[in-house]
Amino acid sequence: MKVCKFGGTSVASAQQIRKVASIIKADPARRIVVVSAPGKRHSGDVKVTDLLIRLASAALMGESIQQPLQAVIDRYTEIADELGLDRDIIDIIRADLSDRLRADSGQHDLYIDSIKAAGEDNSAKLIAAYFTSIGMQAEYVNPHTAGLFVNDPPERAQALPESYSQLAALSDKPSITVFPGFFAYTKDGMLRTFDRGGSDITGSILAAAVKAELYENFTDVDCVFAANPQVVDNPVEIEQMTYREMRELSYAGFAVLHDEALMPAYRASVPLCIRNTNNPSAPGTMIVAERADSPRPVTGISADSGFSTLYVGKYLMNREVGFGRKLLQILEEEEISYEHIPSGIDNLSVILRSHQLDDEKEQRIIERVKNELQADDVHIRNDFSMVVLVGEGMNNNKGLTARAAAAFARTNVNIEMINQGSSEVSLVFGILKEDEGKILNELYKEFFAPALVGQ
Amino acid sequence: MKVCKFGGTSVASAQQIRKVASIIKADPARRIVVVSAPGKRHSGDVKVTDLLIRLASAALMGESIQQPLQAVIDRYTEIADELGLDRDIIDIIRADLSDRLRADSGQHDLYIDSIKAAGEDNSAKLIAAYFTSIGMQAEYVNPHTAGLFVNDPPERAQALPESYSQLAALSDKPSITVFPGFFAYTKDGMLRTFDRGGSDITGSILAAAVKAELYENFTDVDCVFAANPQVVDNPVEIEQMTYREMRELSYAGFAVLHDEALMPAYRASVPLCIRNTNNPSAPGTMIVAERADSPRPVTGISADSGFSTLYVGKYLMNREVGFGRKLLQILEEEEISYEHIPSGIDNLSVILRSHQLDDEKEQRIIERVKNELQADDVHIRNDFSMVVLVGEGMNNNKGLTARAAAAFARTNVNIEMINQGSSEVSLVFGILKEDEGKILNELYKEFFAPALVGQ
Repeated sequence: MKVCKFGGTSVASAQQIRKVASIIKADPARRIVVVSAPGKRHSGDVKVTDLLIRLASAALMGESIQQPLQAVIDRYTEIADELGLDRDIIDIIRADLSDRLRADSGQHDLYIDSIKAAGEDNSAKLIAAYFTSIGMQAEYVNPHTAGLFVNDPPERAQALPESYSQLAALSDKPSITVFPGFFAYTKDGMLRTFDRGGSDITGSILAAAVKAELYENFTDVDCVFAANPQVVDNPVEIEQMTYREMRELSYAGFAVLHDEALMPAYRASVPLCIRNTNNPSAPGTMIVAERADSPRPVTGISADSGFSTLYVGKYLMNREVGFGRKLLQILEEEEISYEHIPSGIDNLSVILRSHQLDDEKEQRIIERVKNELQADDVHIRNDFSMVVLVGEGMNNNKGLTARAAAAFARTNVNIEMINQGSSEVSLVFGILKEDEGKILNELYKEFFAPALVGQ
Repeated sequence: MKVCKFGGTSVASAQQIRKVASIIKADPARRIVVVSAPGKRHSGDVKVTDLLIRLASAALMGESIQQPLQAVIDRYTEIADELGLDRDIIDIIRADLSDRLRADSGQHDLYIDSIKAAGEDNSAKLIAAYFTSIGMQAEYVNPHTAGLFVNDPPERAQALPESYSQLAALSDKPSITVFPGFFAYTKDGMLRTFDRGGSDITGSILAAAVKAELYENFTDVDCVFAANPQVVDNPVEIEQMTYREMRELSYAGFAVLHDEALMPAYRASVPLCIRNTNNPSAPGTMIVAERADSPRPVTGISADSGFSTLYVGKYLMNREVGFGRKLLQILEEEEISYEHIPSGIDNLSVILRSHQLDDEKEQRIIERVKNELQADDVHIRNDFSMVVLVGEGMNNNKGLTARAAAAFARTNVNIEMINQGSSEVSLVFGILKEDEGKILNELYKEFFAPALVGQ
């Protein structure tokens, strides 16, 4: 049995949903279909999710909801009409939205979540109706009915362990399951969304629960590339990579699959495949537990901007037991998480994601570190990027650091930081953001450009 | 005014002490002389300090002290006789030792410290007597009389701020001050020793207090070498380096000057010179606040063994706010200080000095990290070395990491860890101890070997 997840662009229009149907029909093992809300049909388009956010905010502000509500219904109506469905499905969607809008809006976040989730939920109902209309045996299944339960706030939503055994029953259904992604319920029946990774997480949970032979994640690219195609010309396709490699790459800027979505599949040893709804004959990128050795030591190169460095200098810092711990304590109290901590004798730097900072917070952290830790020199610098080389077995590849460092030297890009030594699959370089494109291209050339004949 | 400190081998015998006298006479600016206890005269010899430890331990064990006491007195007697001093000085030394031995031995550590300090104290008395005997105007000055006060236990001994103003009066003395290194007193009159850096610290404090133009640290080598001469053949001499460079080098295995001894001179901007008592015409190595640019990006390369790595792996560790802080807290509670913390997404490693661990502590730390932090994988590996490249302006030298990494690739030495990014003057590589000699030689060749003509 295979679980297939279709992203927003894959269900954005009638034309796209027809592709989904033919993909499902092409392989009888494809028994569970997880769907997103209709996404953009073209670059200037608005996603249904964004229409729903507009609707929710109008409702919360006490503004008229008529126009934003109609915009949502129009999108579904257009799809239903083009698919030749009767208007019953639109009545169902309209009723569903009315119920959600009438619900208690005391907790704004939960109210918005519930209205956003209407995107996926009604997408699943509509697609199940379409499948049925063309003679496929298909059934919309609600996460609550199926037993996909999550923990209570304030922790971010995560599937409860019992969900997996309850969802396992989906594999016994005679019909194809069409399941909305992105949301689930607490044991008390409260709707919660997976805020990072969305529908990919739902698909991963279902694949793990039914012990699928494969979790196919359909999107709008043929595969994962070894480097960002917007920066590097025609990067090579990655045919196969390990979960660990995918996680490191997605963590450092590869937007294909959120690393949290890998977890359930990884834990259940279900292989993943990233495929293209618009080109289903392309083999895609397989993500597996172990892969065959590759002649290339590097599987992918990613870069992510938006990092800041908190530098702390204090003479004889290394003699002071607990200094690092106290610094991390201050950051924890300021709700800052960090990525790397390079250190010298008298100084250490904390590299963190800049979005966690604002001017006031920066000032307060600097003051606290100066006063509470009696530091001599404290400052924050912004506009750093992290460049990550990812590849299994990298820690035993003796010339790899030298090759990477030579690429930096050739481009005259300064290495602001290196983090090597804990991860077996990645090597991280800190650089100035302005150097990102230059060094990405040079590293790509070093590790992926085909060697010329005779060299 | 210059402050001169003479180490153990420089005052080990009458012959050596005559060299000290001629060095002092050669420059009238040399007004303060700090001395160690007589050290080894040859490789099989026993230092006076070790004789004193033997004496103290006999006294504490209730054994006969006659023989170990006589061994100490014999050393001083031999020196005094060869210097042609009369036996008054030996009576003084004998009386001093008797006083110390009779003191309250309730606190063993303090008792041992007091007896050890007799080595420097009587060395200073003897050398002052010798200077006087050859017509130099010289005076033994006791740290208590001069006002060199330190803090109370249990913190390690550090000069109190008021010491500096009190010691400044030494610059007004008409005679040359001969001052014992290594010890000072609390305000209550309790003797305490500088356990790391010893007499070097005393010299540094005095140099800072009198605002000396130079602090000359006389030892038994001509200079500081760019690499360990026991590992690398004929390394180049370092003519000049900055305080920061010296600190990084001494921290990572350069035994010439303990980094704590640099602090007072550094803070008072007193330049230091490492010189050779046995070859006073050699210019030595100058340690200064700022140095002229050098064509070489690396000033010195050091390596230090005795490091261990605590590896901690936990899936989705990077999502867990406070994980690193909690780990450091456990280490703090176990009284472990650490050097570096390389980190991956799901793992981090803590690099620490192995002497802090024993089997029981290792086991307990592993158990605590597993249980208290619910880590998936925790282990400790030993026998690592840290190789440190030191040089001012290193963080802006773009090809440097590439050159170093190429040296690793050539020797096939695996880089277990890199720490670059906080210190401006050092680049640290973690390696297996067994690779130390090989990579030190290759790095030396890379950064110091003269380029061949025509290349």
